[in-house]
Amino acid sequence: MAGVEKVAAFGWAARDTSGALSPFHFSRRAVGESDVKLKVLFCGICHSDLHLARNDWGYSIYPLVPGHEIVGVVTEVGSGVEALKVGDKAGVGYYCNSCQACENCNTHLENYCTKMVTTVCGADKDGTFTQGGFSDIMVVEARYVVRIPNNLPLAGAAPLLCAGITVYSPLKYYGLSKPGMQIGVVGLGGLGHVAVKFAKAFGATVTVISTSSGKRQEALERLGADSFLVSRDPDQMQAASETLDGIIDTVSAFHSITPLLSLLKTSGKLVVVGAPTLPLDLYLFPLILGRKMVGGSCTGGIKETQEMIDFAAENGITADVEVIPMDYVNTAMGRLEKGDVKYRFVIDVSNTLKPTQA
Amino acid sequence: MAGVEKVAAFGWAARDTSGALSPFHFSRRAVGESDVKLKVLFCGICHSDLHLARNDWGYSIYPLVPGHEIVGVVTEVGSGVEALKVGDKAGVGYYCNSCQACENCNTHLENYCTKMVTTVCGADKDGTFTQGGFSDIMVVEARYVVRIPNNLPLAGAAPLLCAGITVYSPLKYYGLSKPGMQIGVVGLGGLGHVAVKFAKAFGATVTVISTSSGKRQEALERLGADSFLVSRDPDQMQAASETLDGIIDTVSAFHSITPLLSLLKTSGKLVVVGAPTLPLDLYLFPLILGRKMVGGSCTGGIKETQEMIDFAAENGITADVEVIPMDYVNTAMGRLEKGDVKYRFVIDVSNTLKPTQA
Repeated sequence: MAGVEKVAAFGWAARDTSGALSPFHFSRRAVGESDVKLKVLFCGICHSDLHLARNDWGYSIYPLVPGHEIVGVVTEVGSGVEALKVGDKAGVGYYCNSCQACENCNTHLENYCTKMVTTVCGADKDGTFTQGGFSDIMVVEARYVVRIPNNLPLAGAAPLLCAGITVYSPLKYYGLSKPGMQIGVVGLGGLGHVAVKFAKAFGATVTVISTSSGKRQEALERLGADSFLVSRDPDQMQAASETLDGIIDTVSAFHSITPLLSLLKTSGKLVVVGAPTLPLDLYLFPLILGRKMVGGSCTGGIKETQEMIDFAAENGITADVEVIPMDYVNTAMGRLEKGDVKYRFVIDVSNTLKPTQA
Repeated sequence: MAGVEKVAAFGWAARDTSGALSPFHFSRRAVGESDVKLKVLFCGICHSDLHLARNDWGYSIYPLVPGHEIVGVVTEVGSGVEALKVGDKAGVGYYCNSCQACENCNTHLENYCTKMVTTVCGADKDGTFTQGGFSDIMVVEARYVVRIPNNLPLAGAAPLLCAGITVYSPLKYYGLSKPGMQIGVVGLGGLGHVAVKFAKAFGATVTVISTSSGKRQEALERLGADSFLVSRDPDQMQAASETLDGIIDTVSAFHSITPLLSLLKTSGKLVVVGAPTLPLDLYLFPLILGRKMVGGSCTGGIKETQEMIDFAAENGITADVEVIPMDYVNTAMGRLEKGDVKYRFVIDVSNTLKPTQA
């Protein structure tokens, strides 16, 4: 908004559909009454950063600073902010504002508010265009910032702000967090590996489901899954028929959900959190004959995100990360596209983002 | 089973894939310790009777006596039966036995038991082949028989045993029976019209959704729906976007569920109870962005069927029926195929099934 004081910010931005990032000076709004300012410490790289940088979804505006798995330290708070104070470790996730008036906002489901403002490439309520966490500072309404408990390692905590809540929320909402449940996780990437950890912490027996056996050892030994199922092996799939209470499907490539439905017990739930753009085939007989369902979920509300972070801290859950310097980001985006990361890149922003690079 | 006493029975059976029914003498097992014998009074005609009579599903065995919406009077009880006595009005629905040992059977979900024995064309546990209620008597284990309260009109009660429980159960299970909810019903046939009545009785505001406006008056004035939505009218559909908590979709023809998903609020539920054989297109974005789900449901357990019948009696709910004589059944099956019935044919078995027709 013209005439309103702004704060200088610096980060790395995509400039065109190549998605290539380079240093970028810009400004953020001044810290308002209900805002907090964060010095960014770490920022995860999510698949959607890749999509946004390349305008895969058709609404990107350049220059575009990606990053919505942000952990930082509070350096300034507005006069109306009570929940956070300077020096607190804090996190920002997929969105940084919403209408604050609708039924969703009033029931802690800001993530489903139709006027939700995404942290990257969103039109914020003050008229500014949002830029993400591949940058030195963030200015965000305190309502959309969660506290990071002191015992949680910060680099590994960053991906929890998006990947973590994306799998935690449906496990809770769809009743899949009860101890003793049999839970399947499809796709062992950024989301899937955290889903395994949360499901285990909830007391589930966890089966990782993958198209090939390549990740078996990884799933069982590194992540602590209880079993591993190769979805292209008909014998294995048949043997596991009707054994699972729920499945978290993190795969965003086109795939068949019919074999997954066959793995569910009566009243079992298949929850999709990765979104292929093409429609999938849905046979209704398996749903009807077993009272099964296919449901979706998209991140989580702020209250639940705080709950998730606190739960992660209590249970020692962080994402498995490869910490990288800022100037490695383009290489990292390329590797991410090929699935070459275990399991999330996290940029060490505060130590490696150098203004002189501009 | 050889050597075991049998009871003579008489009904109308399909003889081949033409589905044409004609008089048929057969036998049922003698009343065992845990069985009851019913004199059949009324039997509804469900769409699946049509499918079975014509072997549409490929597993019909002829001669085949259809009918699984059966109301009768108890004429004999086995020595171990305590829940029913001679003279009680009683009902039998889609299934008449199950394994009684699995997790589903042990949790009142006999309808999802993989060894469930259907009332028509099933292999019962004593080795007999089940024949349905287009016949003079039934012999069924008492566990699978529900009591019909005295104040419930019997002809209108018969379709509740299948159509009624098929819509009642998902309204309850999926949390769509809370007063004040906005519920949509797709398809105004045998299932749909009862869904409107149950949803209204639960205290919902009910919207009937139909491809044309032809059933508007019927829905609003006869069935008491609150509003009517023509699914082929984009303006009406747009205006109703995100207004419904849940939808019961009773349509078994191939159709698109994408427009239905757009009618759901955040966390809304689309429940399918009609089963197209071809797969439907499922776009995951609407599910994910609104935490919506598509779920199925198939009839209900015996305990819940009893609860449904008692609820119907308390709330004066019966199906709207056209009562027909037995020898009208072939004409009725033809009319049913064309949707020419409001809303369920019910055969007045005890008054019109004449053994001399054999």
